[in-house]
Amino acid sequence: MLKLYYSPGSCALASHIALQEAGAAYTAERVDFKSNQQNSPEYLAINPKGRVPALVTDRGILTETPAMLAFIAQSFPQSRLAPLDDAFAFAQVQAFNSYLCSTVHVAHAHKGRGSRWATEETSFADMKRKVPETMGACFALIERSMLKGPWVTGDTYTICDPYLFTLSGWLEGDGVDISTLPKVADHRKRMAERPAVRQVLADEQG
Amino acid sequence: MLKLYYSPGSCALASHIALQEAGAAYTAERVDFKSNQQNSPEYLAINPKGRVPALVTDRGILTETPAMLAFIAQSFPQSRLAPLDDAFAFAQVQAFNSYLCSTVHVAHAHKGRGSRWATEETSFADMKRKVPETMGACFALIERSMLKGPWVTGDTYTICDPYLFTLSGWLEGDGVDISTLPKVADHRKRMAERPAVRQVLADEQG
Repeated sequence: MLKLYYSPGSCALASHIALQEAGAAYTAERVDFKSNQQNSPEYLAINPKGRVPALVTDRGILTETPAMLAFIAQSFPQSRLAPLDDAFAFAQVQAFNSYLCSTVHVAHAHKGRGSRWATEETSFADMKRKVPETMGACFALIERSMLKGPWVTGDTYTICDPYLFTLSGWLEGDGVDISTLPKVADHRKRMAERPAVRQVLADEQG
Repeated sequence: MLKLYYSPGSCALASHIALQEAGAAYTAERVDFKSNQQNSPEYLAINPKGRVPALVTDRGILTETPAMLAFIAQSFPQSRLAPLDDAFAFAQVQAFNSYLCSTVHVAHAHKGRGSRWATEETSFADMKRKVPETMGACFALIERSMLKGPWVTGDTYTICDPYLFTLSGWLEGDGVDISTLPKVADHRKRMAERPAVRQVLADEQG
């Protein structure tokens, strides 16, 4: 039985949806960020980075969303969540997810996590002011060059889709007008209609 | 024939070494950052993100180091650069590379690329001052919890190794004393002795 550690509103949502789409046998355990549970000794024993998500498997613990998403796709091949038999197509899926992880999520994190990279309050405020611009630029590139539609890679739903849905859910709070991104907006709508997504959102908010 | 676009000193070194280790037929073309060639219309047609690395294949163009490294490992299975038949072990390899991409490289980038995330010179200076601390913390975690030794995953050389070598090469310039990181220092020494690494470093500096 797999066990996912998550926090509502975090990027763990992507792996949570992927597990549900895959029909995996799993449990999901909430990590309470308000009480700083992610930095408790108990949780640091699970993930020394003090972050979510973390996935407990019978072989050990996995972290890092792109790695976990590929693992879920490979562990449940019948769910066809990635083009596992085509190294180039798989690399395109991974490149998309890597961009979300290392550029888009990082751009967003400068709104509320400036202390990771600077010390002064004036720097945090400066970083925060730039987030609508950086997130807007990231999603303009996704809209223009990366999201084929209706799903990220085209006609087939993959592990790119729950990850994009997770990060596009941050746009409004980041001051980006999603109406300027019609393909991204359509993607959000399609995702929200999927039974697995509705189930996971209900579970995380319950 | 594969074609790698790189810039010396950049994270493209990881993919460059992996191609050489794999025995791939490839050419490497230097992108001149001094003349801002990465933002020229010609290069933006190759990589709209204006970054290196980019890998031209007969199927299309790939970007993002973790995706490229996994692609190289999957395309040249005889080189045994990743545990391709073990989804959990492959996920561990990917989790390591994802951490380097989304946390370690990002920490380093705040030294010279602060304008990606802020506007004011005072913020850039603040970010730059914190880099020894953030890169030091990242590599302390790698030393303590992630680098098994002698190679990243233990006895077997994988696509994690050229990527770690690439980013550990930035430590001195980032103000981190590598003598406090004996496993990382040993890893650098072993890597520098490999014929593929010597060849690639000579090619990039030539």
